[in-house]
Amino acid sequence: MADEVLFDFLHMELVSYIHQSCSKEENSKDISISRLESIGFRVGQSLIERFTKDSARFKDELDTMKFICKEFWNAIYKKQVDNLRTNHQGVYVLQDNRFKFLTQISNGKQYMESAPKYLAFPCGLLRGALSNLGVNCIVTAEVSAMPACKFQIQIQRA
Amino acid sequence: MADEVLFDFLHMELVSYIHQSCSKEENSKDISISRLESIGFRVGQSLIERFTKDSARFKDELDTMKFICKEFWNAIYKKQVDNLRTNHQGVYVLQDNRFKFLTQISNGKQYMESAPKYLAFPCGLLRGALSNLGVNCIVTAEVSAMPACKFQIQIQRA
Repeated sequence: MADEVLFDFLHMELVSYIHQSCSKEENSKDISISRLESIGFRVGQSLIERFTKDSARFKDELDTMKFICKEFWNAIYKKQVDNLRTNHQGVYVLQDNRFKFLTQISNGKQYMESAPKYLAFPCGLLRGALSNLGVNCIVTAEVSAMPACKFQIQIQRA
Repeated sequence: MADEVLFDFLHMELVSYIHQSCSKEENSKDISISRLESIGFRVGQSLIERFTKDSARFKDELDTMKFICKEFWNAIYKKQVDNLRTNHQGVYVLQDNRFKFLTQISNGKQYMESAPKYLAFPCGLLRGALSNLGVNCIVTAEVSAMPACKFQIQIQRA
C-alpha cells in the first residue's frame, strides 16, 4: 500500500509542478499536457522492459493488448482494464470504469475539465510501453462520466 | 516489485525533466535542486499523513526519528536506515549504506558529482514528513563513498 500511494502522490505533484511551470507560456495547457505525456512515454518504455523481461514473445497485436490490459494495468493501477474493444482495423479501446487517477479528484461535472491533465501521463505510459513492444500508435483518452475513462489506441502502420 | 520500479522510474524522469527544464536559467543547478526538494517536501507531507493515520502519538523527537528510520524508510526505500546518531542537541544523522537512488547510478568517483540531484527529492521527503510531525528542520545529504549516504537533520527550534 505504501508503494502505491508513493507513486500516486508523486504523480499528483508532477502534474501540479508541470502545470505551474508552464503557466506563463503560450498555449500553456497544450504544453503541459505534452510534457506530461513525454514523461509518461519514457516511464512506460522503462517499465515494459522490466515487466516483460521473462515473458515469451507475444503472438500478435491482440495478444500484446491483452497483456497491457491485464498485467501492465494491474501493476500500475491495481486493477485490470474493464473492457477491451477493437474494430480489427487498428483501433483498440480500453475502458476503465474507475480510473485510479480520476478517483482522486472530485466527481462533480465541474471537475471534468481538469481531467485531461491527469490523463496525459497515463496516455504516455501506454504509448511508451506499446512502442517498446514494437507497436507504434497514437493514444488519446476520453472521460464520459467520472471516474470512468476510455483510452483509444490508434495503431500507426508504417 | 512493479510498484517499486514505478516510483523509481518516475523519480528518475522527474530529476531529468527538472534538470533540463532549468538548464537555461542562471544558477540552474541550485534552482533544479531546490525545485526537486520542494516537490519532495509536498510528497513527504502527504505520505506521512497516510503512514501515521493509525499510529499513536510519538513520545518525543527521538521516537519520531526512529519511526522515520524504520517504517518511513522501509515504505519508500525497502530497507531501514543503517545507523542513526544524534548529538542530543538537535542534530540527527541517518546513514544509509546502500541508498536506493544512488545504487541506480554508476559507482565510479566520476559520478559523485551527479549525486546531489538524486538526493534533493529524498531530502525534501524527509523535511516534509518531519514538518507534518511537528518537527521543523533543515535536511542536507552527503555522499562519502557511493552508494552510501548520510542525511543530516538539523532541528530548528522556534
